[in-house]
Amino acid sequence: MTLKEKIHKFIHGEKGDEDKVTGNEFFIKFIYTLIILNIISIILASYKDVRNEYAGFLEYFEMFSVVIFTIEYILRLWTADLFYKGKTAFTKRKNFIFSSYAIIDLLAIMPFYLPLLFPFDLRFVRILRLFRLLRIFKIGRFSKSFETIKNVLKETKEELSITVFISFIFLIFSSTLMYYVESEAQPEKFENIGQSLWWSVATLTTVGYGDVYPITGLGKFISGVIALIGVAFVALPTGIISSAFINKIQKDRKNAESKKCKNCGCEV
Amino acid sequence: MTLKEKIHKFIHGEKGDEDKVTGNEFFIKFIYTLIILNIISIILASYKDVRNEYAGFLEYFEMFSVVIFTIEYILRLWTADLFYKGKTAFTKRKNFIFSSYAIIDLLAIMPFYLPLLFPFDLRFVRILRLFRLLRIFKIGRFSKSFETIKNVLKETKEELSITVFISFIFLIFSSTLMYYVESEAQPEKFENIGQSLWWSVATLTTVGYGDVYPITGLGKFISGVIALIGVAFVALPTGIISSAFINKIQKDRKNAESKKCKNCGCEV
Amino acid sequence: MTLKEKIHKFIHGEKGDEDKVTGNEFFIKFIYTLIILNIISIILASYKDVRNEYAGFLEYFEMFSVVIFTIEYILRLWTADLFYKGKTAFTKRKNFIFSSYAIIDLLAIMPFYLPLLFPFDLRFVRILRLFRLLRIFKIGRFSKSFETIKNVLKETKEELSITVFISFIFLIFSSTLMYYVESEAQPEKFENIGQSLWWSVATLTTVGYGDVYPITGLGKFISGVIALIGVAFVALPTGIISSAFINKIQKDRKNAESKKCKNCGCEV
Amino acid sequence: MTLKEKIHKFIHGEKGDEDKVTGNEFFIKFIYTLIILNIISIILASYKDVRNEYAGFLEYFEMFSVVIFTIEYILRLWTADLFYKGKTAFTKRKNFIFSSYAIIDLLAIMPFYLPLLFPFDLRFVRILRLFRLLRIFKIGRFSKSFETIKNVLKETKEELSITVFISFIFLIFSSTLMYYVESEAQPEKFENIGQSLWWSVATLTTVGYGDVYPITGLGKFISGVIALIGVAFVALPTGIISSAFINKIQKDRKNAESKKCKNCGCEV
Repeated sequence: MTLKEKIHKFIHGEKGDEDKVTGNEFFIKFIYTLIILNIISIILASYKDVRNEYAGFLEYFEMFSVVIFTIEYILRLWTADLFYKGKTAFTKRKNFIFSSYAIIDLLAIMPFYLPLLFPFDLRFVRILRLFRLLRIFKIGRFSKSFETIKNVLKETKEELSITVFISFIFLIFSSTLMYYVESEAQPEKFENIGQSLWWSVATLTTVGYGDVYPITGLGKFISGVIALIGVAFVALPTGIISSAFINKIQKDRKNAESKKCKNCGCEV
Repeated sequence: MTLKEKIHKFIHGEKGDEDKVTGNEFFIKFIYTLIILNIISIILASYKDVRNEYAGFLEYFEMFSVVIFTIEYILRLWTADLFYKGKTAFTKRKNFIFSSYAIIDLLAIMPFYLPLLFPFDLRFVRILRLFRLLRIFKIGRFSKSFETIKNVLKETKEELSITVFISFIFLIFSSTLMYYVESEAQPEKFENIGQSLWWSVATLTTVGYGDVYPITGLGKFISGVIALIGVAFVALPTGIISSAFINKIQKDRKNAESKKCKNCGCEV
Repeated sequence: MTLKEKIHKFIHGEKGDEDKVTGNEFFIKFIYTLIILNIISIILASYKDVRNEYAGFLEYFEMFSVVIFTIEYILRLWTADLFYKGKTAFTKRKNFIFSSYAIIDLLAIMPFYLPLLFPFDLRFVRILRLFRLLRIFKIGRFSKSFETIKNVLKETKEELSITVFISFIFLIFSSTLMYYVESEAQPEKFENIGQSLWWSVATLTTVGYGDVYPITGLGKFISGVIALIGVAFVALPTGIISSAFINKIQKDRKNAESKKCKNCGCEV
Repeated sequence: MTLKEKIHKFIHGEKGDEDKVTGNEFFIKFIYTLIILNIISIILASYKDVRNEYAGFLEYFEMFSVVIFTIEYILRLWTADLFYKGKTAFTKRKNFIFSSYAIIDLLAIMPFYLPLLFPFDLRFVRILRLFRLLRIFKIGRFSKSFETIKNVLKETKEELSITVFISFIFLIFSSTLMYYVESEAQPEKFENIGQSLWWSVATLTTVGYGDVYPITGLGKFISGVIALIGVAFVALPTGIISSAFINKIQKDRKNAESKKCKNCGCEV
């Protein structure tokens, strides 16, 4: 076994193209702990007191994490030719780079290197650090639940796209209608259809913050009708997903306890 | 093939009485692009900055769209006798004019011509332009999803009408009750049952803007009971529709994988 | 046929103990129209302008309705011995009086007679008029949908009572907890557990008016956890009812298209 | 029958390790009445007027309840060796002490004794009294419904944990994103990710109090997208639980009316 193969075996703790996870258990747990600590650090760093007190420590931890993640990424890239499919070592590495997990990994470390290269807006760069949060789906069992939800979404793809599309049309339609009806009475709240869309989303998801609402009689009547009809449409995707979920359970259970006709032995 | 037949074939890109779409691909895509651009233009025109800057351009685009849509409508009307059923060319054209798609088309171009004929209220006319939004359902695949949702609604028609009716009674009942209870404490918010209905809709759809809510002890108690019971009733239609949707999926799948009794070979 | 039998046949347009509706069609439609006009009159009377303008007319209409409804009630009571079960004419009439429809009818006309007998609070009396609204369920087809929903509720009785009970405990528990946590920071909003219950109902039905919400850190944390868990529990009854509804559809359809094994002719 | 056995039989009115409830009916009803009176007393004690007027009575009732509950607890502990499994009387008693019902019982009486031992914060101690509320689940029929819901939750355990986990990630992700986007425009409302999480919970449960909402254009856009997607995810657990509930009904009914193939007599 060459050094490359040894390293490949050592770091290979995530689902790539293979099903078996054979990496070094300690190394994998270390990476996962680092991911969770990074999320906690992002949350803590948002507190002013923590930032004032532990700014240095947080910075060192950030640097340490990025170095580890960078080394991990480079090693993965180097050993990618061993477990990714492709004709040449180059296409294998390309397949790795454009795999969804590798893109998340790269985006998660980029906010550290970008400011060194270009004078970017700091806030935009910080948002990129959020991708480190998505790395949590790489953790074995989470990745499995992610697959399950992906399958359910795939199964109800057609129904979802229909209802999502109709919800979208409904949002646009009700926004435009309310803009025409309310913009004269409340020019600052229903200033344009974009602002009106904010009202639509808040209403049809039934969040209803209360920052924007119709005040004219006609506006109240129309928005009442919109709410009663629209709430049903916007809630449809949820209903479809949850029904599909429970369908999956029933199906799995039926497969487990397949019934046979005792007389003829035939499966019914 | 006469000119009429050629034109009919050229423009016939929408579902009329026939199933086959045989129109000129370029022309159909051009019309669909124009519909989407019209929606975008309606949204953009609501922004003051855009209106100030591009008022002329938007007006020209509006005029251009209406001319195209008018020509399309006239050509459709002219060739309607070729693909609409009816005894005479006149009844065929009448059937076209009163088909839901043609009505939407007419309503969508009318706001341009109406002010030329009568001195209408501008706001009312602008609202008619919204029908141009509904033309999106004529686009092939959208029209298909529209049919699907129509079928689901038709299947659960009876259950929906029951629950919609009970929701309606519940709305009237709770509005009247809250008007009697709260109108003395908050005469400006629960001024009449119409105002009180606004509270009912906002509460029972769980939007809850927070502009109207009971302040008396009795009002809070009654509205708490109303909310707990009513939310369930108003949410029923949604539940029924989404269950019907998933039922459709299961049924389609069962048809695909029809089970046979191995012994007798009969379908079960 | 005696006069009594004639009258019985004339007025018997509502579901009593029998299934057949054999009353005089005109009379029944007249009563139903009167019920709907009464509801409209209650709503209109809540508008100050209408009240000022048409006070006399509304009062006459009220008086006219009550007289009609009273005559109808008396005739029903008189002919009750013809279609209600019971040993003696007295027990038959007693069965009529205590049938749910007769109680609603009596409550609907009482607000007119009560003030003539006792010096009641006017507001309380007006609320009784609301029962006239419930008479709408006596209208043939509405009464049928009422039966359907009653059956669905009866079928899921056990599951509903479990979830309603748990929702109730959850409401009390979260109210008490939030009272302990928030009453010091907001003594006027979380004054007692009753006030706190108002917050609970508004939160767990997801209405969220925004008149009461936690402001302390601990309160926000606890109420966040309560919302995430509680919303699910309070939404359960709705889910159960709508699932039961769709179940009924499936069952009815299965009965209609009973499948038979072609070979043995057995039903599966 | 020794005194211990007699006492055991007298007090054994709650579901322990056995299924049969054989305790003295009067004693059990007395304890249950005391539990409900305690809950009412906790609620009433939150009202200032009641507290001022009946402070002494409430205190005596509290003392009386605690004494009864303490005696009950001691008697249970003493007789635990008769009905709890274990090798020695000591392990049997230990099994009793660590049973969920006994822990609730102990927590329910502790707030009375704790202040006598340590100078605790009064508010924290009062919160412990809430556990007396949970004793209601020990009442026979309630305990049964509690078991039912526990079974349903257990059956959908896997699906629930997946959706709860994804909801959790979604909450963290959206909080962090909104903190980055809105903290500059509203530093006091989106001060840190903790505050931002409060917004996330209020939005994704669709409560929407209206105390925190985005004001920037970008914030409104992102939060609109978050609301539309997130609402579906957070509503999933509810959908799954209610589907599982209705599944249970169907299953129970199918078992009751098992169908037989008429030809071969086999169960299908």
